[in-house]
Amino acid sequence: MQVIDELIHARWVIPVVPRKTVLEHHAIAIHDGRIVDILPSSIAQQQYQPGRSTLLDRHALIPGLVNAHTHAAMSLFRGLADDLPLMQWLNAHIWPAEQRWVGEEFIIAGVRLAMAEMIRTGTTCFNDMYFFPDVTGRTVAQAGMRVVTGLIVIDFPTVWAADADEYIEKAIAVHDEFRDDPLVHTAFAPHAPYTVSDGPLQRIQTLVGELDIPVHMHVHETNDEIEQGMKRYGKRPLTRLHELGLLGPSLVAVHMARIDDDEIELTAQQGVNVVHCPESNMKLASGACPVQRLLDAGVNVALGTDGAASNNDLDMFGEMRSAALLGKLAAQDASALPAWQALEMATINGARALGLDALIGSLEPGKAADIVAVDLNDAGHQPVYQPVSQLVYTNAGASVTDVWVNGHRLLRERVLTSLDGDAILEQTAQWCRRITTGTMPDDTMQT
Amino acid sequence: MQVIDELIHARWVIPVVPRKTVLEHHAIAIHDGRIVDILPSSIAQQQYQPGRSTLLDRHALIPGLVNAHTHAAMSLFRGLADDLPLMQWLNAHIWPAEQRWVGEEFIIAGVRLAMAEMIRTGTTCFNDMYFFPDVTGRTVAQAGMRVVTGLIVIDFPTVWAADADEYIEKAIAVHDEFRDDPLVHTAFAPHAPYTVSDGPLQRIQTLVGELDIPVHMHVHETNDEIEQGMKRYGKRPLTRLHELGLLGPSLVAVHMARIDDDEIELTAQQGVNVVHCPESNMKLASGACPVQRLLDAGVNVALGTDGAASNNDLDMFGEMRSAALLGKLAAQDASALPAWQALEMATINGARALGLDALIGSLEPGKAADIVAVDLNDAGHQPVYQPVSQLVYTNAGASVTDVWVNGHRLLRERVLTSLDGDAILEQTAQWCRRITTGTMPDDTMQT
Repeated sequence: MQVIDELIHARWVIPVVPRKTVLEHHAIAIHDGRIVDILPSSIAQQQYQPGRSTLLDRHALIPGLVNAHTHAAMSLFRGLADDLPLMQWLNAHIWPAEQRWVGEEFIIAGVRLAMAEMIRTGTTCFNDMYFFPDVTGRTVAQAGMRVVTGLIVIDFPTVWAADADEYIEKAIAVHDEFRDDPLVHTAFAPHAPYTVSDGPLQRIQTLVGELDIPVHMHVHETNDEIEQGMKRYGKRPLTRLHELGLLGPSLVAVHMARIDDDEIELTAQQGVNVVHCPESNMKLASGACPVQRLLDAGVNVALGTDGAASNNDLDMFGEMRSAALLGKLAAQDASALPAWQALEMATINGARALGLDALIGSLEPGKAADIVAVDLNDAGHQPVYQPVSQLVYTNAGASVTDVWVNGHRLLRERVLTSLDGDAILEQTAQWCRRITTGTMPDDTMQT
Repeated sequence: MQVIDELIHARWVIPVVPRKTVLEHHAIAIHDGRIVDILPSSIAQQQYQPGRSTLLDRHALIPGLVNAHTHAAMSLFRGLADDLPLMQWLNAHIWPAEQRWVGEEFIIAGVRLAMAEMIRTGTTCFNDMYFFPDVTGRTVAQAGMRVVTGLIVIDFPTVWAADADEYIEKAIAVHDEFRDDPLVHTAFAPHAPYTVSDGPLQRIQTLVGELDIPVHMHVHETNDEIEQGMKRYGKRPLTRLHELGLLGPSLVAVHMARIDDDEIELTAQQGVNVVHCPESNMKLASGACPVQRLLDAGVNVALGTDGAASNNDLDMFGEMRSAALLGKLAAQDASALPAWQALEMATINGARALGLDALIGSLEPGKAADIVAVDLNDAGHQPVYQPVSQLVYTNAGASVTDVWVNGHRLLRERVLTSLDGDAILEQTAQWCRRITTGTMPDDTMQT
């Protein structure tokens, strides 16, 4: 009998790799934060002597979901302004609010609120782009969750940095801070082609080769962005990025809602990763990314919620459903983007985009024990003919009961273990009052 | 002090009528199943002496949601076959399964499962189309929920009736059975233009004048339906229905995913009600109903989930979000279908389509006390700048805590009071085993 930390028995185990596999009455053996084995429960009981044994006989176990595009701290702006076009929403509401409110304390409160929602809906890793990536990294590490914190670069001065030099200097410093962190990974995060000029992009491209981290960037989100690019540079943004040398397996191109046939081919040829954000793209009427055609061309397509200010939730189960539904409509084919493929986008494809697929994205021996349990014994999910269908199509985020990251149980029977849910709600209420009234009295500030 | 049955105090009351109204710290006074008053909590406490007083200080109260298109019993087929085009899904999976399994016991079990899900996600009334509408009516009445049970008519013989004569004979009998029922209403439900020929449609049209009930019908769901109609009748289905005299305020036309400019105008001119089912239309790749254009033309557009076999849930909150998101994408305008309009579609517009807007669809004195409470004090909904945004965009169905129908509390702090949730899950599991194994042993049949 091999001594291990934990043995989780479940009704179904859906490892994602190998593809389309559903194991029944299996167990996952965990030791030192890693998955050491996945095997039938009956055999597991003879083979392993676990420190803890967990029986989830109504549940499906899946890999922790990877939210491949977030602005986590913006959860404090959730619902601040809705039903507006992207540029109006940014110019008249989001950017002024950011200028007024964003600082270290805002980031801590916003990231905690986002993590509370994400953990409870089965996300274990998120690819973030926002100011104060150092604060985000520390806040996530403290909660035991996993993040790729984006080293933001943008042309205009913000509270985080004054100019391109300072953004890049700080990017390198933040990368260094988390170099050996088991939970906090980094990526360059130049905001978008229309907000970052050639100089900083070239410097980032040089640094990517040295640091071997991804480049996380909004690309081809709207027609407006493409028209601006044509006007300013005489070429479409993707062409410009190609000429600057940015297209490649390091690039995590978010949105890609407006791409033509040649650009699908270019994306595939160059090995660019795409992050599809269906709900944000629909809500801002940006367009529908041709996901099935990208997948057919061999492109790695991951899934993201975008920030809570344009979604307005961070529930990756809902995002999987929206991706599958929109994918079918866009392809005019009900067999496009089937449930199992949406689940791949939300797990292994996300891990691959972030260069983390040796560590997370599937339930396989040797990978980190980033695991999510979903209780399917509910009137909203029953009957279960095919558990993957129910996970994608029946609002399963509300039925996540348990979540492990690196073998640590961050959600136990729906209760957060590493975050104080009540304190988060209290902090959020304080921020809501501040943002609504436009005042920031010192006496209500607690972090 | 006026003696009343119940006084519900809430953080927010969103009555839907008048439009865009959000009342804070208000109370709803209920007596004899009706709303008698809506007023500030502080005044209510001086004015009314309630038998029961309920404080919901983290909650929004909204009118009970009206699911304007369901096949409730099909919840037993949830996830049986997914990711397939409509006709393949119907011909190869759904219709054979119905032929094999549908009977009175199936209906009872399926409708109970559907009600459990609907009540828990804030639906108080559903417009159903299925076999055994009498059994559906009785099952719903027993649970204290509200239904418009569809008097199904279809050309081919089924377990419910052999031919048009028998379908219509049974329709009249079921209508008579529920003539004075406070919770069970009826509508004719000729399945679709491609499954009901001219003779029965003409008889239905004559009877509608006598009985004064709606006609609930799938119309222009797919291009295939329109092509079939052109081939068989030499005209588009909507034109054929117009010539048969069916277009008018009695008609509840479901889907309308494929309509041209002239048909939008015709629909508006004739006062036809449209039921939009965005998730089903996307999942079956049927198309996107031009909702904003219909609304702009003055058409009453309601909202439905369709059956759980093609959705795969009956959560109207999710459907509101999908409607808003798809509406923006289809209109290429982020300000199209704002949150408040999605909420109207799911409440007052549904009530109007069913001819029940004097009774339900808004929180107004004199109307039935069909009320839903949503707890917004959750990391997934906070902060709350505009409660209607959070109701529509943040998966609020999972946060419904209390539901009243006709003044009776069918959900109390998330627990069903008129349905046995455990028994429903057990019955559902039995049906799942039967349908999976293809056997129906008498000894496991319990109803």
